[in-house]
Amino acid sequence: MKQIYRQRQSARPAPHAGEPTSGPLTPEELQLAARNHSMPLEALRRDITPPGLHYVLTHFDIPDIDAASWHLQVKGAVERSLELSLAALKKDPAISIPVTLECAGNGRSLLKPRPLSQPWILEAVGTAEWTGVPLAYLLAKAGVLPDAVEVVFTGADDGIQGGVRQRYARSLPIREAMRPDVVLAYRMNGSELPPQHGYPLRLVVPGWYGMTSVKWLESIDVVTVPFTGYQQQPAYRYQDSADDAGTPVSRIRIRSLMVPPGIPDFFTRNRVLPRGPVMLTGRAWSGHGAVTRVEVGIDGKWATAQLEKPAGPFAWCKWTLPWVADPGEHELACRATDATGATQPLGQNWNYQGMGNNLVQRVRVTVD
Amino acid sequence: MKQIYRQRQSARPAPHAGEPTSGPLTPEELQLAARNHSMPLEALRRDITPPGLHYVLTHFDIPDIDAASWHLQVKGAVERSLELSLAALKKDPAISIPVTLECAGNGRSLLKPRPLSQPWILEAVGTAEWTGVPLAYLLAKAGVLPDAVEVVFTGADDGIQGGVRQRYARSLPIREAMRPDVVLAYRMNGSELPPQHGYPLRLVVPGWYGMTSVKWLESIDVVTVPFTGYQQQPAYRYQDSADDAGTPVSRIRIRSLMVPPGIPDFFTRNRVLPRGPVMLTGRAWSGHGAVTRVEVGIDGKWATAQLEKPAGPFAWCKWTLPWVADPGEHELACRATDATGATQPLGQNWNYQGMGNNLVQRVRVTVD
Repeated sequence: MKQIYRQRQSARPAPHAGEPTSGPLTPEELQLAARNHSMPLEALRRDITPPGLHYVLTHFDIPDIDAASWHLQVKGAVERSLELSLAALKKDPAISIPVTLECAGNGRSLLKPRPLSQPWILEAVGTAEWTGVPLAYLLAKAGVLPDAVEVVFTGADDGIQGGVRQRYARSLPIREAMRPDVVLAYRMNGSELPPQHGYPLRLVVPGWYGMTSVKWLESIDVVTVPFTGYQQQPAYRYQDSADDAGTPVSRIRIRSLMVPPGIPDFFTRNRVLPRGPVMLTGRAWSGHGAVTRVEVGIDGKWATAQLEKPAGPFAWCKWTLPWVADPGEHELACRATDATGATQPLGQNWNYQGMGNNLVQRVRVTVD
Repeated sequence: MKQIYRQRQSARPAPHAGEPTSGPLTPEELQLAARNHSMPLEALRRDITPPGLHYVLTHFDIPDIDAASWHLQVKGAVERSLELSLAALKKDPAISIPVTLECAGNGRSLLKPRPLSQPWILEAVGTAEWTGVPLAYLLAKAGVLPDAVEVVFTGADDGIQGGVRQRYARSLPIREAMRPDVVLAYRMNGSELPPQHGYPLRLVVPGWYGMTSVKWLESIDVVTVPFTGYQQQPAYRYQDSADDAGTPVSRIRIRSLMVPPGIPDFFTRNRVLPRGPVMLTGRAWSGHGAVTRVEVGIDGKWATAQLEKPAGPFAWCKWTLPWVADPGEHELACRATDATGATQPLGQNWNYQGMGNNLVQRVRVTVD
């Protein structure tokens, strides 16, 4: 596998990572899986996910930023541009908000055929309490001009994707950017932002998939025409094929996950548990509205779980269902519904980039 | 890939994960890569690795421990058994020590054929400052009896490996256990131990591969016959074949790694950098003695790097070498030597479990 560190014959990478495949996992996917870590499902037990358990996706390298010389620029279609140090930002009014973030590509490796990119299984999720300045406060300070349509956020992370040299950048429509709960965060779970979560400053957009919450933020640019950078398009779109213009990925689709009960086998991760009463538990979340129902399937029969009140409107909600496990092999599943009536599909919702997959999780267990 | 959550036909797993393979990556390896995270190589820039960047291997699930009711037992061939709360342990004298930990299976996925287990590439390493009670202090308090030969450490993590139900347990010879720098740590980098690093208490054995530093520690058992639990044997041995009794894995072999220069391509991780001067840098470490030399290979020509003084005798040491990059494709490499004269091999040192691999790292870059 030494060749995975070697350049291709051509120094110019293909525009896309490649056609979806039904073949085995590739060394490139393993490299991404080794870099980008997911949340072990037993961490669903916690309301708040600590660094190291919270999922992380970094497109390029984690930048090495000296906070003392770092500045945030606010510019573009504004009455006055701003240049703010971290110390200055910390003097502005701050809010703290618990937010469930999920990678838009979560579940990708379960798709058939499999889009070639970060091969998430199920666990690219986490919930943290983010503290910082409301974006709307800074935008009001700068004075957004009437012809503004979007706000573009650019990070310090620099690399090549789809043949395009870029710094990671994404935009938000003005109406989303002006929401009172969108935060420029410099603290995670009460501590300084860890390097891999965007130190010294990141955007957090509650309810949207993680690609929107730009890390290592350096500039905020108010624009009068929609942004068309690589990460806005062609990336992060629901497409039927490479030729389909598709629609943009935005809010998180309804999803639930279960803490796999019992104990695991090291290699296969097969689960074993003793017969008798066991409390099945997990979390459910949606970026479209409150979670209204979680059903738990036991060998194909569905029962309604009890829901706890979440820590906030964009934080996951805990669910529980008692079960009396009887000896044998069982298949457990969980399926959530949100206030819009949206529910998780039982079959895959395939798309070309492997985005927004919220297929019902299934856990096989052996009860002895 | 739904079948990766399914039991095999037989509920009894095979005694070993399987024969080494030359085939493609398996879904089981991807599951392990998704759970167990490595250190992105750009984090080699840091003396101390924060949680979330430091590598983590958990054989089973991360246990959910209530520190208020948790106790550490010290028992076996001692004059008096001890049962200590976390609060009591924190009243004992504490030491802080910077330690480089590396997984014994680091580099496994690069081996040909490839042993089937956690598919580390190169990055299963990290350096943290661990704070806690010296093990020797507690053992002295308990009074080790003269016929003691080993100390067995058992964690709270519970599962099945090689067909054996077990709690994770490993032993140390008495002479190693009595070293003044072996620590029962309750702090990592000055903060409370994170869940995935062994909260509320873990062992840290400087110089030994990570499997020795038992996490979620619950009992310390002084024994008069050598321990033969699963993780001592058959696991963690240098074996030529499944039938070879082999020799135990212990101290970390000399190794160096480089921060890949330039910027990456998202999918291939191919590196590109501009022509001109660049400082190549990385870290080197050994559990057998001080690092005495790091050589950097540029297209097969070796030059000696400058070494910095490490933070402690078991912490990695930084190396640097200036390079003037000229346009074209280049292969960079680094190779360290320690005080015993041991140096990293240029070809693979294959063994059946994929242990102790310290093959020279090679990084291909395109200079434009």
